[in-house]
Amino acid sequence: MALLCDIGNSFAHFYDGVRSWREPHNRLELYRRERVCYINVKTALEEELRTFEGWTDLEPFMEIETDYRGLGADRKALCLAVEDGVVVDAGSAVTVDLMEKGRHKGGFIYPGITKMRECYGTISPILKGEMVPVRAQRLPQRTDEAVSYGILIPLVKAIESLGSPIYVTGGDGRLLADLITDGMYDGLLIFKGLEKVKERVC
Amino acid sequence: MALLCDIGNSFAHFYDGVRSWREPHNRLELYRRERVCYINVKTALEEELRTFEGWTDLEPFMEIETDYRGLGADRKALCLAVEDGVVVDAGSAVTVDLMEKGRHKGGFIYPGITKMRECYGTISPILKGEMVPVRAQRLPQRTDEAVSYGILIPLVKAIESLGSPIYVTGGDGRLLADLITDGMYDGLLIFKGLEKVKERVC
Repeated sequence: MALLCDIGNSFAHFYDGVRSWREPHNRLELYRRERVCYINVKTALEEELRTFEGWTDLEPFMEIETDYRGLGADRKALCLAVEDGVVVDAGSAVTVDLMEKGRHKGGFIYPGITKMRECYGTISPILKGEMVPVRAQRLPQRTDEAVSYGILIPLVKAIESLGSPIYVTGGDGRLLADLITDGMYDGLLIFKGLEKVKERVC
Repeated sequence: MALLCDIGNSFAHFYDGVRSWREPHNRLELYRRERVCYINVKTALEEELRTFEGWTDLEPFMEIETDYRGLGADRKALCLAVEDGVVVDAGSAVTVDLMEKGRHKGGFIYPGITKMRECYGTISPILKGEMVPVRAQRLPQRTDEAVSYGILIPLVKAIESLGSPIYVTGGDGRLLADLITDGMYDGLLIFKGLEKVKERVC
């Protein structure tokens, strides 16, 4: 059985139907003789991946009904996992997409939490600091709370305004899902989408 | 009659009761013989300002009922202008504060629109670009829309969730007020707050 692999800008994530694990890009070489169905958003790796004989790029086979131009392979795969609802991927960027009856209705992009923290740091040294716990129902009473709230709660409100259910994945997915009413964390969401494509292709 | 002056990180804004105008910091010297009631958040200017004889710093006289620690002089002045409602100052940072019956209930900080655009640029060159018109009711269908929506709409949703009326001021205030249901732009809001303090002091 072929492995599934989602290659992002920072890491590659593998899934064998049971377990998932991540690898740095420079270890992909070790899998070159495996059968792997993959998607890749790191353009610098494209050429090398084509030399891996048992590897199949799923991107050309991913079809999704949408008017959106420029939907990345990873967003497509996540959306294919969901028939109805909001799909959130909280990585170095946060992508938020809306699915209705299997159709992609559009979506937006927000900076990842790490990027937002860096951004506040460039405004003023006072706004640089560790994240502190916040929740939408309690207005901040100090600068560090005001920043953590500003990083997270506007995003939460924009996500919630799109409807439900809300599926959340990605490195900061757990943190974010905890703040979202009816937010459900699913670390394997992208593989559920890729699985559907693989069934037709690999 | 004394002038009012709000000295921010980029410019100083003056108000004579009728007109308002801005000056770069290096032109403040020209006003040293005027009678001026001011607030200043640019710490590097503090010492020089103390040598201006007719100038009175209003900060020590600004009293506002709040549990918030570290509320800047400019935020205090804006809040003093409003008895009930949400106060938004869209500058190099965006501050959002809630007032209820003259009491400050808390608030949060969001990066200014220029800072947010820079932030997206550091994630990927694809996310760098001009702002395009967006509105909350229409989900983006292209990358540039997805970014402009991400910069503005989460902030709009977080502001709207705090209640109304919503008073908006600052350099990007007009743009933001247009997107907020019941958002009212008021370029002189801070001077309305300072006026109240001045009446007691200068």
